[in-house]
Amino acid sequence: MKTLFLRDNEISLKEQPVPVPCAGDALVKVNIAGICNTDLELIKGYMGFHGVPGHEFVGVVESSADEFWIGKRVCGEINYACDNCDYCRRGLERHCPNRTVMGILNQSGAFAEYLSVPLANLRLVPGNVPDKAAVFTEPLAAAFEILEQVHIQPEDSVAVVGDGKLGLLVCQVLKLSGCNLTLIGKHESKLALAASWGIAVLPRGKAEASSYNLVVEASGSPSGFDSAMELLRPRGTLILKSTYAGNLELNMAPIVIDEIQIIGSRCGRFQPALRALSNGLVNVTDLIDCVYPFDQALAAFEHASQPGTLKVLIDFNA
Amino acid sequence: MKTLFLRDNEISLKEQPVPVPCAGDALVKVNIAGICNTDLELIKGYMGFHGVPGHEFVGVVESSADEFWIGKRVCGEINYACDNCDYCRRGLERHCPNRTVMGILNQSGAFAEYLSVPLANLRLVPGNVPDKAAVFTEPLAAAFEILEQVHIQPEDSVAVVGDGKLGLLVCQVLKLSGCNLTLIGKHESKLALAASWGIAVLPRGKAEASSYNLVVEASGSPSGFDSAMELLRPRGTLILKSTYAGNLELNMAPIVIDEIQIIGSRCGRFQPALRALSNGLVNVTDLIDCVYPFDQALAAFEHASQPGTLKVLIDFNA
Repeated sequence: MKTLFLRDNEISLKEQPVPVPCAGDALVKVNIAGICNTDLELIKGYMGFHGVPGHEFVGVVESSADEFWIGKRVCGEINYACDNCDYCRRGLERHCPNRTVMGILNQSGAFAEYLSVPLANLRLVPGNVPDKAAVFTEPLAAAFEILEQVHIQPEDSVAVVGDGKLGLLVCQVLKLSGCNLTLIGKHESKLALAASWGIAVLPRGKAEASSYNLVVEASGSPSGFDSAMELLRPRGTLILKSTYAGNLELNMAPIVIDEIQIIGSRCGRFQPALRALSNGLVNVTDLIDCVYPFDQALAAFEHASQPGTLKVLIDFNA
Repeated sequence: MKTLFLRDNEISLKEQPVPVPCAGDALVKVNIAGICNTDLELIKGYMGFHGVPGHEFVGVVESSADEFWIGKRVCGEINYACDNCDYCRRGLERHCPNRTVMGILNQSGAFAEYLSVPLANLRLVPGNVPDKAAVFTEPLAAAFEILEQVHIQPEDSVAVVGDGKLGLLVCQVLKLSGCNLTLIGKHESKLALAASWGIAVLPRGKAEASSYNLVVEASGSPSGFDSAMELLRPRGTLILKSTYAGNLELNMAPIVIDEIQIIGSRCGRFQPALRALSNGLVNVTDLIDCVYPFDQALAAFEHASQPGTLKVLIDFNA
């Protein structure tokens, strides 16, 4: 089968045998896969990953010990848990210390014609959600994760810092809470896109300091942290969505004096995202920058790595 | 009246006129005042304070427009709020942006024979709480602040890092939740004191990594932050109680990946602390290192600045 392979900070097309799933797994034929910023970070050496990357996909189950799944259109939760530890027992498989992670940690990913996915991780895609929307399930779930961690109230004054793909998804999800929401970004075209969804927008540097009780840092850069801190009111909450290499220099005193709360936020459950897609609560297809056939996957990565690019998809059936 | 005065990083005894309280204030004659680490930081230049420091005290109301208070034994909430802003209206006077703070920010403090305190800040000391216990109300309230911010559950595995005065108070308060509590410190004698209260103790470096779901950083030093982070499980909560000058270098990725929550924690309400003292729920008098008469206040400060010292009190009636 055709795959995209990462080794020593380089990706290339590579022919590999179709995986043979173990008893608890299904073999899934990939329809579309999305390129995430994390994939670009992996190429730079993040997580020391080598193998087939890719963790945003939609596909069809080709074979499975459980016949229910055969022929079903699915996406897949990316954390493969042990199902036998304290975290798994508490429903926190995403934090299982024994986990592998699809295309990120010791597990082959979705930039391949086929991949093997544990049955427990499969999620049925509702019939009214097209492939080009379903492929956003994973990043959309990461946006919904914020609502699992924090109770956002309708009177909350909320800012999202960063108008990239994740920031734009986060905005759409937080808007559902009825809160007073502002997107703060650097890119005119992306701010215009958010404005077209009815979201208030401000260019970086124009937002009033100390005037938000919740700020989401989704800029993907260390400078976003300081901007986000400045915007927070005393007793405010900062949600960290960005991961990047390197350290941050931080003065802790204001965090203590103003009793600021900082919450790291990573993967979310898929079902809320799939429900939102099915119910038309969010618009993800506006986020598609372009779609490449798999044969041009390297060009797709080149395109995705240009600053300011929105979602680049790879279509295995094109 | 006799006062202790701080200017240009130096404290000295200074004779000053007795304050004349405005209509909304009471004049309080100080019985005992306590030396806090913050006072030692003020001398080093923290907050750029000059004037009379001191924010831990117990005294007797000498005069007041409201006759109820005259002759009453009191302590006083240290944040003097405007009572007219959004924070004050939400009961968060401690975060009023227009506030002054007793002996810390634009407000004369308690290392003086008399001080003027707003009536709204006075708290009656229960009759069964002696002065040498009541003087701990402010730091004990700061320990109770954690319980206002976080719901600690009886099954929680909790570590307090730092066996100083604040760490020992925090331990006693968190123990009340029934949680599985461990104090982690560097000083054999202080760990022994906590053990005598029935608290599990471990020397620094001996605690198991990733095994606590709540960690309180009360060490007062930047190295405490890294220790505290190491102890946390994924989805764990880190309470920051220490303030110190200078920056910390921080890798944010583990905070996001493990979805860690960091919460700054400062002043607390006085009533829970006074109730705990009155009900005998905490032992504060064990924390007294020694008591100096006011005439020896400079020696008291010298003593308090020695590493490892517990609470040093200044008695105005001795």
